[in-house]
Amino acid sequence: MPAFTTLAEFAALLTAAPAADAAARSAASDRNGQLTKPPGALGRLEDLALWVASWQGTGRPRIIAPQVIIFAGNHGVCAQGVSAFPPEVTVQMVANFQHGGAAINQLSKTFGAAMSVHALDLDRPTADFTQSPAMTEAETLAALHTGWDAVDPKSDLLVVGEMGIGNTTVAAALAAALLGGSGADWVGRGTGVDNAGLSRKAKAVDAGLARHPSRDPMQVLANLGGREIAAMAGAMARARTLGIPLILDGFIACSAALVLHAVTPTALDHAVAGHLSAEGAHGRLLAALGKEPLLSLGLRLGEGSGAALAIGIVQAAVACHSGMVTFAEAGVSAG
Amino acid sequence: MPAFTTLAEFAALLTAAPAADAAARSAASDRNGQLTKPPGALGRLEDLALWVASWQGTGRPRIIAPQVIIFAGNHGVCAQGVSAFPPEVTVQMVANFQHGGAAINQLSKTFGAAMSVHALDLDRPTADFTQSPAMTEAETLAALHTGWDAVDPKSDLLVVGEMGIGNTTVAAALAAALLGGSGADWVGRGTGVDNAGLSRKAKAVDAGLARHPSRDPMQVLANLGGREIAAMAGAMARARTLGIPLILDGFIACSAALVLHAVTPTALDHAVAGHLSAEGAHGRLLAALGKEPLLSLGLRLGEGSGAALAIGIVQAAVACHSGMVTFAEAGVSAG
Repeated sequence: MPAFTTLAEFAALLTAAPAADAAARSAASDRNGQLTKPPGALGRLEDLALWVASWQGTGRPRIIAPQVIIFAGNHGVCAQGVSAFPPEVTVQMVANFQHGGAAINQLSKTFGAAMSVHALDLDRPTADFTQSPAMTEAETLAALHTGWDAVDPKSDLLVVGEMGIGNTTVAAALAAALLGGSGADWVGRGTGVDNAGLSRKAKAVDAGLARHPSRDPMQVLANLGGREIAAMAGAMARARTLGIPLILDGFIACSAALVLHAVTPTALDHAVAGHLSAEGAHGRLLAALGKEPLLSLGLRLGEGSGAALAIGIVQAAVACHSGMVTFAEAGVSAG
Repeated sequence: MPAFTTLAEFAALLTAAPAADAAARSAASDRNGQLTKPPGALGRLEDLALWVASWQGTGRPRIIAPQVIIFAGNHGVCAQGVSAFPPEVTVQMVANFQHGGAAINQLSKTFGAAMSVHALDLDRPTADFTQSPAMTEAETLAALHTGWDAVDPKSDLLVVGEMGIGNTTVAAALAAALLGGSGADWVGRGTGVDNAGLSRKAKAVDAGLARHPSRDPMQVLANLGGREIAAMAGAMARARTLGIPLILDGFIACSAALVLHAVTPTALDHAVAGHLSAEGAHGRLLAALGKEPLLSLGLRLGEGSGAALAIGIVQAAVACHSGMVTFAEAGVSAG
C-alpha cells in the first residue's frame, strides 16, 4: 500500500506533517543557557543544536546516523544544447558514485554518513519540456515514491543530492514558474556553459514557461521537472513527515525544496541551508525559501556536496550542546 | 639546548623558515584538473587541498593527525575592569578542558583531533600593562618556548586556541600597536562587557600604547601581550618551521599571528583563517593578515573553537582531492 497514489495526496501528506517539538526546543534552550561558555558565544551552532533538538524531541540530541541519498535522472531538454557535458555523463557518474570515486563519496566518508545512489530510468530521459510535459502524473508519482522510500526512518540527519546532465536548466524552469521572472533571471553557468549555452538555457526555460501555464506546484514539477528532482522532493517530504532534520544542498536541490515550499510554507521547517552555491541564482532561491546558508565556499558541483560538507557543522553543534557540561557541573563562575 | 635564547633569535628562526613545496603544489594542481568534477566545482576546497599538498610536500596529501593546543594565561590588566568574568574563571576553565567539559573538547573529538592544554603560571598574572611591561624578556621567552615545544612534529594540521580572562583587551592592544589606531578602534564586547566595560577596555589599551612606545613586534608582545598569546605565537612559529598547516582561530589567536606577521610577512604562509569571529575587529585583523575566513557562523568563544570547526572543512577538502578518481580512471567523458 503506497503512502500516496495521487499528486494531491502527496501534497496533503506534506501539509499535514506534524510540527517540531516545542517543549524539546525549550528544554534544549534551557540547557544551552547553562553550558560553560558566555551566552551566545557559539553563534549559529547554538541555533543548530536547538533545531535538531526540536526535531529529535529531546533536549539532548545526538547525530549518529546521517544519511546521504543521491538521485540521478536524464532530461529531454538536453536536446536544446543546455549543458557543457554530454547526457551519457549521468550514467557514467552514477557508476563513479557506486565505485566510490566521486566527491560525495569522500564527503560522506569524512563525516560518517551512509550513502546510497538511486538512478531513475537513465535510459529513458524525461520529455523535452519545450515540446511537451516533462513527465506524466504516473512518472512523477513513481519518482516521488523512489525518493520517499529511499529515506531510512532510522537516520537522524539527511542530505539529498543529485546528478543529472541538464538539470540546472530544469531547476531554473521550476524557480521561474514558482517565483516569477524569465529564464534569463534564473539560469547560470551550471557545469560551465559558455555565453551561447547560457542563452540557449534561458530560451529553453522561456519556451517551457510559455508551453506549460499551470502554476500549481505539483503540476509545475510534472511539466518542467525531472525524475531526480521529483525523487529529491519525495525524500525531503518523507523526512518532514518523519521529523528527520534535513540539510539543503545547492540550486537544484533547492528547486526541489521550492516545490514543497510552494505546496505549504511549513514544508521546510525541518531544513537548514547547507551552503551558498556559486550557481548565480542560488542566493535568490535561498532567500525565497527563507534560509540562511551555513557555508559559502564557492562550491557548484551538486551531488549533495555542499550539504554534506555542512554535516560536520551540525555534528559539531550537537556535540557541543549535548557533550559540554554546565557551569554548575564544572564549578565555573558564571560571570 | 633550546631552539632560541633571545627574542631576536626567535624572529630569525621564523624569518628563515623554508617556503612551501612548489613542485608538490603543481603536482596537486595537475591531479585536481583530472578529478571527476567540472573544473573549479569544489570551490575553495580545491585551494585548501593544494595548500595542504604544498606544505606536506606531496601531490596527494592526507590529514590523519590533527592537533589542537590550548594555552591559558592570566592578565594584570584585569585590574582595570576589562572583563565580564572574574579572573578565577581562567583556572576553572582549564580544569573544565582537562575534564572534557568545554566546547573545544567536543569539537576536537568530533573531528578526531588530539587536544592538549597548557596553563601558563595562572597564579602569577602578567603585570598590568597600563603600569609596566606585561612580561619581561625572560617571561616572554619562557612562554614562546612553551608554545614551541607543545607542537607535535608528527601532527599534520594544527589549531592553536586560548583561554584567558581579559585577553581580548590584550589582543586589542597588540593590534593597535602593530596596525595603528586607538583602543576604541580595536576593543569589542569580548565575553560580553557592557558599554562602561567597553570604555574601560579602550582606555586601558590607550594607556598601554602611551606607556610602551616601542613598535618592534617582539617588544610589543612583551610589553602588551600575555603568556598564552606568546605561547600561541611560539606554537604557530614552530608549525611554520616544521611546515605543518595551521588554521587560525579568532581575534586573540590572530593577534598572536599578527606579531609573527609583523616580524616577517611570510610567517603565516602556512595558515588559513578558520572563521570570522563575532568580535568586532576580527574582520579588520584578518584583512591585515591577508586571510579570507572559511566560516562565518557568529562564534566568539575563543578556545580555538572556530578553527577547530574548520578542521572538518580541511579534512573534507583533502579527502576529495586525494580520494576521488580521475575522469580516465572512472571512464567519465570530460565534457
